[in-house]
Amino acid sequence: MENASFVLRAVKDVAIEDRPKPELKDDYDVLVHVAQTGICGSDVHYWQRGRIGDYKLTGPMVLGHESSGIVVETGSKVSHLKAGDRVALEPGVPCRRCEFCRKGSYHLCSDMIFAATPPWDGTLAKYYINAADFCYKIPDSMDMEEAAMVEPVSVACAIAKTADLRAHQTVLVLGAGPIGVLCQAVAKVYAAKTVVAVDVVERRLEVSKSYGVDYTYIPPRAAPGDDPMEHAEMVATKMKSQFGIEEGFDVVLECSGAEPCVQLGIYAAKPGATFVQAGMGKENVLFPVTAVCTKGIIVKGSIRYLPGCYPAAIDLIGRGQIDVKRLITNRYKFEEAEEAFELVKAGREDVFKVIIAGVE
Amino acid sequence: MENASFVLRAVKDVAIEDRPKPELKDDYDVLVHVAQTGICGSDVHYWQRGRIGDYKLTGPMVLGHESSGIVVETGSKVSHLKAGDRVALEPGVPCRRCEFCRKGSYHLCSDMIFAATPPWDGTLAKYYINAADFCYKIPDSMDMEEAAMVEPVSVACAIAKTADLRAHQTVLVLGAGPIGVLCQAVAKVYAAKTVVAVDVVERRLEVSKSYGVDYTYIPPRAAPGDDPMEHAEMVATKMKSQFGIEEGFDVVLECSGAEPCVQLGIYAAKPGATFVQAGMGKENVLFPVTAVCTKGIIVKGSIRYLPGCYPAAIDLIGRGQIDVKRLITNRYKFEEAEEAFELVKAGREDVFKVIIAGVE
Amino acid sequence: MENASFVLRAVKDVAIEDRPKPELKDDYDVLVHVAQTGICGSDVHYWQRGRIGDYKLTGPMVLGHESSGIVVETGSKVSHLKAGDRVALEPGVPCRRCEFCRKGSYHLCSDMIFAATPPWDGTLAKYYINAADFCYKIPDSMDMEEAAMVEPVSVACAIAKTADLRAHQTVLVLGAGPIGVLCQAVAKVYAAKTVVAVDVVERRLEVSKSYGVDYTYIPPRAAPGDDPMEHAEMVATKMKSQFGIEEGFDVVLECSGAEPCVQLGIYAAKPGATFVQAGMGKENVLFPVTAVCTKGIIVKGSIRYLPGCYPAAIDLIGRGQIDVKRLITNRYKFEEAEEAFELVKAGREDVFKVIIAGVE
Amino acid sequence: MENASFVLRAVKDVAIEDRPKPELKDDYDVLVHVAQTGICGSDVHYWQRGRIGDYKLTGPMVLGHESSGIVVETGSKVSHLKAGDRVALEPGVPCRRCEFCRKGSYHLCSDMIFAATPPWDGTLAKYYINAADFCYKIPDSMDMEEAAMVEPVSVACAIAKTADLRAHQTVLVLGAGPIGVLCQAVAKVYAAKTVVAVDVVERRLEVSKSYGVDYTYIPPRAAPGDDPMEHAEMVATKMKSQFGIEEGFDVVLECSGAEPCVQLGIYAAKPGATFVQAGMGKENVLFPVTAVCTKGIIVKGSIRYLPGCYPAAIDLIGRGQIDVKRLITNRYKFEEAEEAFELVKAGREDVFKVIIAGVE
Repeated sequence: MENASFVLRAVKDVAIEDRPKPELKDDYDVLVHVAQTGICGSDVHYWQRGRIGDYKLTGPMVLGHESSGIVVETGSKVSHLKAGDRVALEPGVPCRRCEFCRKGSYHLCSDMIFAATPPWDGTLAKYYINAADFCYKIPDSMDMEEAAMVEPVSVACAIAKTADLRAHQTVLVLGAGPIGVLCQAVAKVYAAKTVVAVDVVERRLEVSKSYGVDYTYIPPRAAPGDDPMEHAEMVATKMKSQFGIEEGFDVVLECSGAEPCVQLGIYAAKPGATFVQAGMGKENVLFPVTAVCTKGIIVKGSIRYLPGCYPAAIDLIGRGQIDVKRLITNRYKFEEAEEAFELVKAGREDVFKVIIAGVE
Repeated sequence: MENASFVLRAVKDVAIEDRPKPELKDDYDVLVHVAQTGICGSDVHYWQRGRIGDYKLTGPMVLGHESSGIVVETGSKVSHLKAGDRVALEPGVPCRRCEFCRKGSYHLCSDMIFAATPPWDGTLAKYYINAADFCYKIPDSMDMEEAAMVEPVSVACAIAKTADLRAHQTVLVLGAGPIGVLCQAVAKVYAAKTVVAVDVVERRLEVSKSYGVDYTYIPPRAAPGDDPMEHAEMVATKMKSQFGIEEGFDVVLECSGAEPCVQLGIYAAKPGATFVQAGMGKENVLFPVTAVCTKGIIVKGSIRYLPGCYPAAIDLIGRGQIDVKRLITNRYKFEEAEEAFELVKAGREDVFKVIIAGVE
Repeated sequence: MENASFVLRAVKDVAIEDRPKPELKDDYDVLVHVAQTGICGSDVHYWQRGRIGDYKLTGPMVLGHESSGIVVETGSKVSHLKAGDRVALEPGVPCRRCEFCRKGSYHLCSDMIFAATPPWDGTLAKYYINAADFCYKIPDSMDMEEAAMVEPVSVACAIAKTADLRAHQTVLVLGAGPIGVLCQAVAKVYAAKTVVAVDVVERRLEVSKSYGVDYTYIPPRAAPGDDPMEHAEMVATKMKSQFGIEEGFDVVLECSGAEPCVQLGIYAAKPGATFVQAGMGKENVLFPVTAVCTKGIIVKGSIRYLPGCYPAAIDLIGRGQIDVKRLITNRYKFEEAEEAFELVKAGREDVFKVIIAGVE
Repeated sequence: MENASFVLRAVKDVAIEDRPKPELKDDYDVLVHVAQTGICGSDVHYWQRGRIGDYKLTGPMVLGHESSGIVVETGSKVSHLKAGDRVALEPGVPCRRCEFCRKGSYHLCSDMIFAATPPWDGTLAKYYINAADFCYKIPDSMDMEEAAMVEPVSVACAIAKTADLRAHQTVLVLGAGPIGVLCQAVAKVYAAKTVVAVDVVERRLEVSKSYGVDYTYIPPRAAPGDDPMEHAEMVATKMKSQFGIEEGFDVVLECSGAEPCVQLGIYAAKPGATFVQAGMGKENVLFPVTAVCTKGIIVKGSIRYLPGCYPAAIDLIGRGQIDVKRLITNRYKFEEAEEAFELVKAGREDVFKVIIAGVE
């Protein structure tokens, strides 16, 4: 095949198709031979439901956006990259001209071209064209799997930056999936005083422990008929007391998207604390807005990556501060992409990150 | 009487009682002869229900906390005030020693002594003792009614500061009660580009207009059976379009505490906007948490006053930048205090701020 | 002539030359017919000395960068502008790809194309091509002279933003040339508590007064043999005392570039104050670095415009908050450009802003 | 002796005197039996010259302010400490009432009582009375020498906080004395990408290396007749190139107070960088103010400790993230205090931190 591509043709219908090798049109773009691609929950979501929020599948779309690769060709105005360079791919290229782009908030650009977000094709193909400044050279010590993992680490860095995460803070991370665990790892590297990881799956919390969190916690479920808010407040009080953080956490990172976690997080926050909503689940939740008011809490949404997050993530992995290989539990060949997606869909407790090798 | 005091003896039971004239104990305190006191919703709330959140009436308590007065006596270490000085009283004195006080967040101090918050007596008495540094000399041009109004203006300044309100922003203020209207006025003084005032009562919006807001808006109510979130989103879209602010507001100040307003405010916010929750109504609301996440919105709670807000409010009133007299719709003598409270309780559309003169 | 241009051919050698009408190459650019152009000190500097800092004249260069104009033609991807639109021109277009551009600091982009900064041609020509997103539509109420004045007002807005200028602050502005006076005007619009204008020329301070500054001050010169630092400290103490600002100014904006003003400004600053260096004079000055240290002062450099400053300036002028016409003291036709430059060079006290009309 | 005290009686005249055991007067104070005290440059400065800046010795004064101790007695309102508790002493107690204290900038309080700053006695005595909230319980794992070292680590934390030091930054630290080295150590713990230590003494840079800095650098001295600024710029260029940081450092921490280092630091800073002046040497220096302006640099002074720095320092030492024992090169008994001071005065390259044990 000229350019084998893993295409979502319609809801629940994927196939490997051949597509023409893309050609460079913009002087600032580069053509990349994709090496490794991690599967993200959003990929599976599009596959199974065809939409996320306002983004709706309207035609065939290549999946995948967590990729590394090797530069094949460079546009005429690209100076910092050359053919053969090994790169991590930041998969969203903003318009560079709108108010958001100009003031340094390109993650809010409404004209962003984001891989595998309709109508834009993703990276699960032999070749991918990206803006050169969104391709980051990786150090020699980093392999292509690690370079694909730069994506989720960047998400964690963006969450940390949104939270203004700093040394000596007490940090609560709700959710111990890949993003939650990476947030925990980032918090420890940034010299957090105490990191508490919360999840309902013991096995995931074992991964958290391997990244050095100080405590893990499985919150008790509410009994039928319990008031959910009273339950959340009670669990928060109990958890804070158990870890000697009675006054509450300086920072809460919500990476699960689960309604009870959002509620628990607000009640567990210290007055004046920052709570970052990064997980996406139910669109609307019952929310203790008066507690936010009286405790003077700051709630911030985090989405995608902020400027500087890709370099930060490469720094973290490249200097050995976060071992990402440990998160990769399953590896597939490009031809087995659908099988890989099935595995992620199954949601098994022992599956953390599934990665698909590129076409030779 | 030695020290006539308007006492909440139990729920729904108020009376003027005589109490001993208080004596200075702390070298840094001053004794103030109270001149004018505004009535706040929280005063009425304690009167009618005996509690607000965790604060619960446990014994008789003097009401009132929005006061001005004249210094009668000063502690031995007070240097910036002397007997005869006319002052505005900031009614919450923090512990000065906890982590919050030390880092400049005294509004979050859990040991704050706040007037008319159980178990602390309020200012509706002939005399009140306050920490000298929480008594602010007012300019000669300011009268005692205006000095009592420094309190709600300080609340508005705190909301503005929490929102990091700046020149050239588009600002949506939900609620046109005294705090909402003062937030609108502050936004205009701070050179906001566009201020939109929202309320369901036309008469209140007339007051907003008198403070120079650019537009007023009465949101349509949801029909029975409407999805509240879809309704909120639809109203937001319509309102933004009507005022040419399609991209959304830079800043949203929620001063109503009404659930539909909270929801409308989030949908009306621009990506990256700051939304401040200042109004207090239902403890929990259905909240579009995914919109907060994907739009990268910052939600902050505002409570009481931040350091510097009293001086800012005095500056605003003293230099004539905000005319607060216009908000005072009803005036009572001290002996008529209960009648004044009844008026506020009634919630008439033509009643804005009710003020009670002190005992001679 | 096809495209009459006011060209600096070599140091002290200017002439009007005909040049070919420029053609649009980039889809995001627009061709503008220049309407009015203000003369800036830097234009005169290049004319007289051929260099500013590292920027050195290497060939003929069109002068001018403070311009307004009318859109003549738009690139194929421009959607927010059309032929006939009246615009203010932001004269520096950054690379959009470097670290600075991406994080919202495009004023620090080292690849910026800045009008009339070698080797880039300026705007004193019939036609100028600019990136569409750096052309801002002006309201109908604004005329072309005002639109040219958007440039210096943007500089003042950038200084104010760098200083984080806010309501209720005490502000000292050193220098009452066009930029200093506009900083004073901006500070008043932003509701500064007190603005003090300092200059050595009484006539300039009269202009300051017309913009509502609270006080003006002509600092006494040091006598021969005086220690300059002791003199600066003494003047600062005297000035602060005279205006009742003994504790020092919250914000100091240095717009003169004069060494004694830099020194005076540091001594006049309150502990923890922000001092912005915007004026450019001697490259190196004797600087009270220990005072900066012990007083915990923040010194920031300001250069050109930050994102959002052009829209802010248009808002200020368009809503009538700053009257810029008052600053325009002299008007010239395009053919008289050299005469206009001679007038600015002369530095007369009665000359504030000199403006040159475009070619019909 | 009842309360043996190391007293500076006059310039260059110290002696151990007996003083009465101090008695608690304030309900919030505690009496501490001092355990270990480090010697700071400022102690030696008062001893040799009798003044620092505006602070001038006016009578006998006990020296010392870097101390740990054991609580002997507590005031009646102290709840978080009891006799026997081991504490680190923050030696400056602010007024808690001024504008600076209230807004969280107590380091700028002009009424601060600071140990061994005239006229306030220091901690080199058997007993010292301190405000309870400025005494911090240390973990069991920390010994009294380490607890005395909390002071310089707090200074480094305050510098880091002033610089807003973050992970992934490139950091230049000028000066490798105790404060400089601790800043380097803090930067590494906070996950700086690259830390470069500069000093003129190789031996000090060896200590820097032991704390994990990435590079050390001894700058070449200017030859007689060299222009100091050109020299500084040349050295900066050379150094940046040598370490692959051509664009300049994100953060510069000036801990030497040496004029050439100040100049070098500005030239080595990246556009938009933060430069913190923490070292104190010459009161005034020749300063590249135009470079600050055109590069948009932020220069900030750092003095003493910010709120939260003592807890941060205890966290760093207590969790073993910074080994401070390594810095203590010389230990003395209380009776040998003068000898200890002589050693510090001598300024030998092998002497880093000298510590004096308390009286039994």
